[in-house]
Amino acid sequence: MNTIKVDTASAYEVKVGKKLLNTLGEEVAAVTKRGTAVIVSDSNVFPLYGNMAQKSLEDGGFTVFSFVFPAGESSKNGTTYLALLNFLASKQVTRSDCLIALGGGVVGDLTGFAAATYLRGIAYIQVPTTLLAAVDSSVGGKTAIDLDAGKNLAGAFYQPRLVLCDTDTLTSLPQDIFIDGCAEVIKYGILYDAELFAHLKQHALEFDREAVITRCVSLKRDVVMADEFDRGERMKLNLGHTIGHAVEAVSNFTVSHGKAVAIGMAIIARSAARNGLCSKETSDEIIALLEAFGLPYNTAETAGTLLCAALSDKKRAGGTVNLIITKAIGDCDICPTPVNELESVIEAGL
Amino acid sequence: MNTIKVDTASAYEVKVGKKLLNTLGEEVAAVTKRGTAVIVSDSNVFPLYGNMAQKSLEDGGFTVFSFVFPAGESSKNGTTYLALLNFLASKQVTRSDCLIALGGGVVGDLTGFAAATYLRGIAYIQVPTTLLAAVDSSVGGKTAIDLDAGKNLAGAFYQPRLVLCDTDTLTSLPQDIFIDGCAEVIKYGILYDAELFAHLKQHALEFDREAVITRCVSLKRDVVMADEFDRGERMKLNLGHTIGHAVEAVSNFTVSHGKAVAIGMAIIARSAARNGLCSKETSDEIIALLEAFGLPYNTAETAGTLLCAALSDKKRAGGTVNLIITKAIGDCDICPTPVNELESVIEAGL
Repeated sequence: MNTIKVDTASAYEVKVGKKLLNTLGEEVAAVTKRGTAVIVSDSNVFPLYGNMAQKSLEDGGFTVFSFVFPAGESSKNGTTYLALLNFLASKQVTRSDCLIALGGGVVGDLTGFAAATYLRGIAYIQVPTTLLAAVDSSVGGKTAIDLDAGKNLAGAFYQPRLVLCDTDTLTSLPQDIFIDGCAEVIKYGILYDAELFAHLKQHALEFDREAVITRCVSLKRDVVMADEFDRGERMKLNLGHTIGHAVEAVSNFTVSHGKAVAIGMAIIARSAARNGLCSKETSDEIIALLEAFGLPYNTAETAGTLLCAALSDKKRAGGTVNLIITKAIGDCDICPTPVNELESVIEAGL
Repeated sequence: MNTIKVDTASAYEVKVGKKLLNTLGEEVAAVTKRGTAVIVSDSNVFPLYGNMAQKSLEDGGFTVFSFVFPAGESSKNGTTYLALLNFLASKQVTRSDCLIALGGGVVGDLTGFAAATYLRGIAYIQVPTTLLAAVDSSVGGKTAIDLDAGKNLAGAFYQPRLVLCDTDTLTSLPQDIFIDGCAEVIKYGILYDAELFAHLKQHALEFDREAVITRCVSLKRDVVMADEFDRGERMKLNLGHTIGHAVEAVSNFTVSHGKAVAIGMAIIARSAARNGLCSKETSDEIIALLEAFGLPYNTAETAGTLLCAALSDKKRAGGTVNLIITKAIGDCDICPTPVNELESVIEAGL
């Protein structure tokens, strides 16, 4: 097991390793008061791991309730959020109790936002069961729900008390969902770490789970500690996301987050190469790695369609969009881009 | 005009004086970027001051939108909150824009919570138009909505950029609403300030508006700066509120907040006197002052009924309730009270 310490306003640990779910109860007891623990999960994950989590928490001395909602991004909305808040109130959950987010990014984002706002903030623990959640959404305290107008438009910065990543749970993922998470793993390589990129190139889908997840979490930890509230360096984690969110939205979320980000990273890489901001070799290497992981790197959408969808994205501050541009493997820049130039940037990358 | 500086994690000023609404545009421009300003108000206040606020903001260089909802506590719910978030997204409000809470406590709490969570936080300005909001809810950054199970059960700690209290707007209040706010003014006297209490006793409803509001805001500022997140001293501001919230809830909110708090403070005072924690004279003085302001100090509800309603109140941490007990005028204590003793405390004060 590897432990990464995250030292934001409130410090916490990310534990990565095998069979960690069995220790959930004692781990949670070590960072909260033994009271009520509410497992929040979805209809895919709860049947697989709900009982194990509940037993471990009960053995740890907790009273356990469970709130399970239909799996899928479409559940990450205001209605599910209010239903969860009302569930917590109906169980008389108090400020000294805690929530356990057992699942992927949708579960983690929604649970974190409910924890941030129920009674103006109670403790929560992230138990990511997808690669995407393990390397990205479970660390860093960004919580959110979607609004009709777009993804993650409401939320809070709110750190968990603990992140427990049992790598065994990742083996239960359908291959397709696992590959989805690989897009974010590749993102860390492109952004910060040529060595990680090389490891992925060498091993493709057979990469070392524990080592790679630990490396990704460490990289994210460094970014989050430098910029908890996403005003500077942390924006780099949006590599591929501005266009990726647009791809997701335009597809009505039939294109998954990871695949949309892969397409977004590919568009940005090609655009950067065509505009002389990075070499053609760098762009080709990125496309080749996405291909080796079975990730998409093209879209049939037009630049105009993607532009419209991107403009309702929250990263727009006034008349500019902060695009993350690849310069080389392991080296990217934040480029404030005027809204009226965005379409030609996208066009160059299609 | 008086200015009180609040120095929490993010510092801001509270300005109290006449004709301040005319300066709204320039004041907001001084603390935000000149972009879009969204006025959030209710059906009582917007017809009175909406145009003035809008004109001032437009003169200050802002693009202005307005979101107006039906007046009343029953609007402070998840549905209105989500409608406001969707409204902001539909107007493509960005992180550099701001919200203006024009109204009483319901408007301020709801607007603040939306500002805290829309795009994970944008700027907001409090423009309290009731005495209650001026001396209490507009300062200190407690934002909230109600859930079915009780008041203020979801929310965030999130400070405004500026509080602009135009004392002229208070004159438009129905007398009954004004008296409601007086309960919180009296609370500050009981909690912290025998001199303020004496001023209120001498002048009753004719008290000096600007001076008293400034004094109450200064007292609240000191408390909030010492304990922004309500883990210690700030709990004292709940004097009369645990039982008051129960009175409100049991009445299905036909008893207003101020009147419910008045009843709560009266019950606590009598209970403290009967249990030898304060003198009979202190308790009598408090009841007499409430009476002089036309505030209620009795309820027909039983201790058992109030207990049940109080137990779903958020201040309960595990098996105890933090009651604020009057020792003398200007001197109160936080008393952690086991839940199983709460009924007899209430009973003694009925």
